[in-house]
Amino acid sequence: MHNNAIENLIKRLSKLPGMGSRSARRVALHLLSDKDVNMDPLQSALQTARDQVQQCSTCHMLDTINPCAICTHTEKDNHKICLIQSVGDVWAMERTGFYNGHYHVLGGVLSALDGVTPDKLAIGSLLNRLDDTHEIIMALGATVDGQATAHYIAEQVRKTHPEIQISRLAYGVPIGGEVEYLDDSTLATAMKSRGAF
Amino acid sequence: MHNNAIENLIKRLSKLPGMGSRSARRVALHLLSDKDVNMDPLQSALQTARDQVQQCSTCHMLDTINPCAICTHTEKDNHKICLIQSVGDVWAMERTGFYNGHYHVLGGVLSALDGVTPDKLAIGSLLNRLDDTHEIIMALGATVDGQATAHYIAEQVRKTHPEIQISRLAYGVPIGGEVEYLDDSTLATAMKSRGAF
Repeated sequence: MHNNAIENLIKRLSKLPGMGSRSARRVALHLLSDKDVNMDPLQSALQTARDQVQQCSTCHMLDTINPCAICTHTEKDNHKICLIQSVGDVWAMERTGFYNGHYHVLGGVLSALDGVTPDKLAIGSLLNRLDDTHEIIMALGATVDGQATAHYIAEQVRKTHPEIQISRLAYGVPIGGEVEYLDDSTLATAMKSRGAF
Repeated sequence: MHNNAIENLIKRLSKLPGMGSRSARRVALHLLSDKDVNMDPLQSALQTARDQVQQCSTCHMLDTINPCAICTHTEKDNHKICLIQSVGDVWAMERTGFYNGHYHVLGGVLSALDGVTPDKLAIGSLLNRLDDTHEIIMALGATVDGQATAHYIAEQVRKTHPEIQISRLAYGVPIGGEVEYLDDSTLATAMKSRGAF
């Protein structure tokens, strides 16, 4: 019964990640119920982000400046590059406040099933920025595809820059995790990589 | 680390109902990752809805026309008015395809705690459109506030239009519901209102 403008808004909203048709209806109603308070600030935030946000041409982060704030940050250690799958992972890493180097956003991981071949990832631009690099930290997911990608890239890096140290995130029990609920591979890895208490 | 335009978009998104800061980040990334495909259609859907959608001055539904499509529908029974809390409830009712009358969207229910007094609801406009009405169906929630509101409005209606029949939705076991998991009041109501098999 409801008309095209509302229908179309709901359809668009329901395409957002994590949003079903029920929550899209709820959001559309929320936006339309008080346009000045709910709709306008969202629209202007979208427009500003649309206009200003771009990809950094060095590390492929999203930012309003290019090169991005991380690449131009004077206190970041520019001998370290953390290899990351997506922009969200950089945000997560930066929230920890624990890493003080640069990043390189790969834009995905190799996947034969999804047709993601090496040329679809930002691998060439990584190899071109390694002259000052002492360490590459592989921070891709601990999945089959993530690890295959890390191995592939490590191989490429060693061909041209054999002096660069390549490391990876530690695997093990997540902080706050109960041993009882861990999957077998994590538990086996955690046991294999055990350290001094 | 991420900048104001992205930060502000995430903040705005996280104010949508059902959206937390984590899902807002995910949506923002999705929108920014491919602006042409993801961002633009959403923006134009928002703009169209913003420009076209308005409240029906008769029944307070949202529509692109005023009076709305339901109020101007020639095949709807205009002797029946279904009293509804919010626009979403009308959509739900229309999806059933089972009701063939008009609606009146109240815009909420009376609530002493939230400061919702009778003058904040569309009660006056209801009383002003009852001249042709034979039946009012109370379709407010089966909550304390919903029922208090229904009683209050029924009282007002009986003062000026004592001839109008006032009915309400049936209470009972939801279709597909297991008796074991029903709350006590629903079960008691379902038993009290039992019908012939």
